[in-house]
Amino acid sequence: MQTNIGFENQKSQDYTIYIDEMQKLKFDCNVAIITNPKVAGLHLNTLLSKIEAKALYVITVPDGEEYKNQKSLDMILESLFNHRFDRSSVLIAFGGGVIGDMTGFAASIFQRGIDFIQIPTTLLSQVDASVGGKTGINNSYGKNLIGAFYQPKAVYIETKFLQTLEKREFGAGVAEIVKMAVTFDQDFFEWLSSHDLHKSEDLALAIQKSVQTKAKVVGQDEKEKGIRAVLNYGHTFAHVIENMTDYSRFLHGEAVAIGMVMANTLAVRLGLLSEDEANKIKDLLQKYDLPTSFCIKDPKAFYDTFSLDKKTKNAKITFILPKGIGGFEIKNDIDSKIVIDVLEEFRDDV
Amino acid sequence: MQTNIGFENQKSQDYTIYIDEMQKLKFDCNVAIITNPKVAGLHLNTLLSKIEAKALYVITVPDGEEYKNQKSLDMILESLFNHRFDRSSVLIAFGGGVIGDMTGFAASIFQRGIDFIQIPTTLLSQVDASVGGKTGINNSYGKNLIGAFYQPKAVYIETKFLQTLEKREFGAGVAEIVKMAVTFDQDFFEWLSSHDLHKSEDLALAIQKSVQTKAKVVGQDEKEKGIRAVLNYGHTFAHVIENMTDYSRFLHGEAVAIGMVMANTLAVRLGLLSEDEANKIKDLLQKYDLPTSFCIKDPKAFYDTFSLDKKTKNAKITFILPKGIGGFEIKNDIDSKIVIDVLEEFRDDV
Repeated sequence: MQTNIGFENQKSQDYTIYIDEMQKLKFDCNVAIITNPKVAGLHLNTLLSKIEAKALYVITVPDGEEYKNQKSLDMILESLFNHRFDRSSVLIAFGGGVIGDMTGFAASIFQRGIDFIQIPTTLLSQVDASVGGKTGINNSYGKNLIGAFYQPKAVYIETKFLQTLEKREFGAGVAEIVKMAVTFDQDFFEWLSSHDLHKSEDLALAIQKSVQTKAKVVGQDEKEKGIRAVLNYGHTFAHVIENMTDYSRFLHGEAVAIGMVMANTLAVRLGLLSEDEANKIKDLLQKYDLPTSFCIKDPKAFYDTFSLDKKTKNAKITFILPKGIGGFEIKNDIDSKIVIDVLEEFRDDV
Repeated sequence: MQTNIGFENQKSQDYTIYIDEMQKLKFDCNVAIITNPKVAGLHLNTLLSKIEAKALYVITVPDGEEYKNQKSLDMILESLFNHRFDRSSVLIAFGGGVIGDMTGFAASIFQRGIDFIQIPTTLLSQVDASVGGKTGINNSYGKNLIGAFYQPKAVYIETKFLQTLEKREFGAGVAEIVKMAVTFDQDFFEWLSSHDLHKSEDLALAIQKSVQTKAKVVGQDEKEKGIRAVLNYGHTFAHVIENMTDYSRFLHGEAVAIGMVMANTLAVRLGLLSEDEANKIKDLLQKYDLPTSFCIKDPKAFYDTFSLDKKTKNAKITFILPKGIGGFEIKNDIDSKIVIDVLEEFRDDV
């Protein structure tokens, strides 16, 4: 299956996302595969059997969100300079979102930009991070605060890499699929509610549907000036949750699951979503054992942490809320009292 | 005077270069002026009288090419995070090429890209660096090896800032003007040969002509896949000269002047340029007291340093050579022996 991503403003960036169609890739230049030890141990030989290059390097960075930082980026860049990579060289991101984000950012700033290819190995990165060109690293102020919009030349999604995925990692990916359905596609949501993504044909279909939706949104609004912000549904809350738990307690998709439940509670309060709809979404998340609760000990402190998030424009907090299932509303004028009041409901969460 | 830069591939990036037309700039957001102590001492009050912002910050970085590095970049970014800059904030580059390149790069990677404005204060940055969106920093491997193509929202060139320019800095700017004329415009070259850029009307005209030429080239080929490379005439040699003299002996434009003389010698050898034309170019450079000689003690070592330059594609060295005055040729198949032989001619230069 193939999905094309077409950019309204810059056609030269268009590229194709291939699902379970990876052929042998041949390169007449230096190629570096950026990966982590875990992915390399499980799948590097499979990938290597598919790649032919003038010269091939493997750069291994430590596994985990806490290593998505300037130090790992410097290590990648230093390797590239050391091996005399030039403007015609190509990087391949082989791993989850952390690998993809760092590789894409390294590609974007190495000699003012070289080509890179995404080969995502987690469900989360297959349905979300690998498509759309958001790249970057975290710093002490928060997540993805240094980065670039920089599109890959192609994305190869191979569902066979998911067979080794841990259950929690799988659920984290499902959370982003649910996100796509809730905000953009009621039929897809109903389909998800009546199917089981542990079945491989259903999973491949759900990946394709998610990728198509994302490609459409990103093609219209690459740099998140408008509709692309909707993809942050759940994320405004999730970033605070991740920040408060040192990026260690929850996987990103798990934090997004909780974030969606919080956003839904706010949406119910504002009359955008019914209690029944909110429960349906929660049920779907729980079907994949995703966390849906989080104890907010200090709602005021939680609220204040929003403003460090990069989606904050002149200190107004932007919330992406579902409007029924399959619709959305972008709100940046919600009274802080209402939000804090909603956060209070999570004070006794366990 | 105004020059518009229009991008064939991405119209959304179009912007205007204003020459001696700066009006009061008003911003409803956080603004940071990035400058150095020298420029601030001479001209910051003039700039401040033209700016109105919701909140205004001045970030001062040390003056000089040797500070165009990761450390200065980190300092700028840290300031922005510390002052809680967000996606709607704006940076203003106020200084020469070093300030412009670093500010543009910081703007490109801060929260995946915020707006910036160029207000160049040196002749070199007015005619060259401020237009076209090449941003970046140096590292231990060479110049501009980390960076991005990232366009400003507008460029304001004010010739009054040039009144305090030192004579060498002025000449360095003239070198880039000569570069533009030699490769693209014979009439402009003849005009330069018969005029004196120390006269302010002539200078303003020469700046406009250079900026128009550059805008046209960059608009056609933002990312230097083709014709934009011609703007590197003289630079392949200049980068090695700068590298070998620790970026301290020559100003960038001075190194470019020597580089053009070297490129011309190679062009004469290959029958692209006549001796007479080469001398005319040298005369024009010398009229502005630009250096035109450099002692190459070890031609082989000089040649080997080319390959660390980012313009090198798969270890082939690309030379931009004048084809008569007003024309050019891009060559990447010149036998290394011929080049080294030409470099030998500079062994006894003083």
